[in-house]
Amino acid sequence: MAYDVRFISQADVESLGISMKEVMDGVETGWRMNGEGKTELPAKIGIHPRGNCYIHAMPCWIGGDTDMAGMKWVAGFPMNLEKRLPYNNGIFVLNDTETGVVKAIMDCNWMTTWRTGAAAGLGAKYFAAPDSAVVAVIGLGTIGKITLRAFKEVLPAMKYIKIYDPIAEQYGRFIDEMRELLPGVEFIKCGSVRDACADADVVTSCAPILDQPRRSVSADMLKENVCCITSDYDSTLCADTVSGGRSFVCDDRGQYLWTQEHGVYFQNGYPLAEGIYADMGEIIAGKKPPVLEGRRVCLFMGIASHDVMTAKLILEKAAEKDAGTMLKL
Amino acid sequence: MAYDVRFISQADVESLGISMKEVMDGVETGWRMNGEGKTELPAKIGIHPRGNCYIHAMPCWIGGDTDMAGMKWVAGFPMNLEKRLPYNNGIFVLNDTETGVVKAIMDCNWMTTWRTGAAAGLGAKYFAAPDSAVVAVIGLGTIGKITLRAFKEVLPAMKYIKIYDPIAEQYGRFIDEMRELLPGVEFIKCGSVRDACADADVVTSCAPILDQPRRSVSADMLKENVCCITSDYDSTLCADTVSGGRSFVCDDRGQYLWTQEHGVYFQNGYPLAEGIYADMGEIIAGKKPPVLEGRRVCLFMGIASHDVMTAKLILEKAAEKDAGTMLKL
Repeated sequence: MAYDVRFISQADVESLGISMKEVMDGVETGWRMNGEGKTELPAKIGIHPRGNCYIHAMPCWIGGDTDMAGMKWVAGFPMNLEKRLPYNNGIFVLNDTETGVVKAIMDCNWMTTWRTGAAAGLGAKYFAAPDSAVVAVIGLGTIGKITLRAFKEVLPAMKYIKIYDPIAEQYGRFIDEMRELLPGVEFIKCGSVRDACADADVVTSCAPILDQPRRSVSADMLKENVCCITSDYDSTLCADTVSGGRSFVCDDRGQYLWTQEHGVYFQNGYPLAEGIYADMGEIIAGKKPPVLEGRRVCLFMGIASHDVMTAKLILEKAAEKDAGTMLKL
Repeated sequence: MAYDVRFISQADVESLGISMKEVMDGVETGWRMNGEGKTELPAKIGIHPRGNCYIHAMPCWIGGDTDMAGMKWVAGFPMNLEKRLPYNNGIFVLNDTETGVVKAIMDCNWMTTWRTGAAAGLGAKYFAAPDSAVVAVIGLGTIGKITLRAFKEVLPAMKYIKIYDPIAEQYGRFIDEMRELLPGVEFIKCGSVRDACADADVVTSCAPILDQPRRSVSADMLKENVCCITSDYDSTLCADTVSGGRSFVCDDRGQYLWTQEHGVYFQNGYPLAEGIYADMGEIIAGKKPPVLEGRRVCLFMGIASHDVMTAKLILEKAAEKDAGTMLKL
């Protein structure tokens, strides 16, 4: 029996004019549901057709009033960059929770970038001092840019953006793209990670994720009161930065600990179960209070509830504007 | 960056005229690769938005010369039947193994049915006596029908089909549909499972899969030399039938044992690790010989390598005939 499916390409998604505020609201709701125990979020599985490559299945059901289910099937192929193809590719499939049938199939590139930025922004909303003026961005690629877009929503006093990247050309591209978005702030090019971190109220790291990281942000580079938000696993923040502060917060306890147990990441001094102050779900659900003094670290790997909530938003907007292509499955 | 994806609906798949022989050849190749250790087949994960419902992610990479990767995202919602919707729904996504990009998205209903029949047919190819004349089919729904279609390919001496279903209307529908396909055979309606099994050389069970099965085929109903092939987990065959015979063969050792450990299925006397003679991958790869005497049991849950191989076939045929819809993702 055939039924209707909305197919939403990357170009369609980009045409919808979804704002960062909307994505952040969605991600926040999903996280809250997770903190309230209303989501089903199994640890992702995947296949590895080539060395250093993965294709991951990330299913998630968000229950409660939201009641949305879906799955991201996303590939990460580092050698794509040499072929002028994106590192990440894939789709998100949204299902009807009453019948299980597929309602929409959409490109997942935009959502992955934007929900990652939104999550970092929510880290700043709950853990950065409201008067934070100096922000350091380590890694000036796509995630660095989107993170700053999210910070704009929650850090109204942001005045100086100290930037660092090991690749010289990244500075110009970053400033060109960000200047228009943040007309009132000053961009300060820094020649080292230490320079960038000095005096920063908020430090965010957005480097490529490496199996064997050369971590560079050590505790002695940081102010006493600082909020560190990382979107690059353990590639940038040194263990003493992450473990020795006032609070360590992850996306989701289960997924952080599962990843730590199974692998390569969060080894050599990163917090173990007892070192986790809370996960963001618990914070947003009000089970643990945010911390606003001392060194606070938010480490966000990205979880499937962000994707479901962003997909929900994309489908709603697409239906409203009749964007995408209606197909019979 | 946009790229081309072939979207193949259920109607498109059905229009391709793929034969059972072709599906069986594909499934056999995938199984052989599995037996040769050339596949990556993680245990499926899923979400459960309603009671008794699932949506499962089944990723698989088949390496070697085949080199195909993909994932089935398939929902099973029993209450759909009351809504006149199919129990199972979903899609299969096929990826390029060099770049990870999605090459095709196709409805998975047809492939799920046909590869399940094909697997049962391969069980008969390797474990049924070549002169098998009497076949019993317990459960006369979609899977019962497709299994018979596959048996036709491998059991040339099949002459009597003894059929049983607890629902009276199923007999007529089954015979109407099967008579044309199997003009030379005689269909014998049986009033009980025992009647159906008496004198059968091959017994296949295709009942709905239940969490709390009422198993009905006990060893004393069966001939000494019999091949039992089940596609309904442990819903029909009694433990003494499965455990007390000459050989017990499953799809894949790892998946059978993982399912047994985690759950509901294969409890109360079903074979444990040491009771498995071989898995079908090992048989087809020639690591263990087939068994042709005594009671042989093949229990097939369905594995993702079947889906990848069937998807490969569908995409090849669709490309050849330019079926489906080309979309920009």
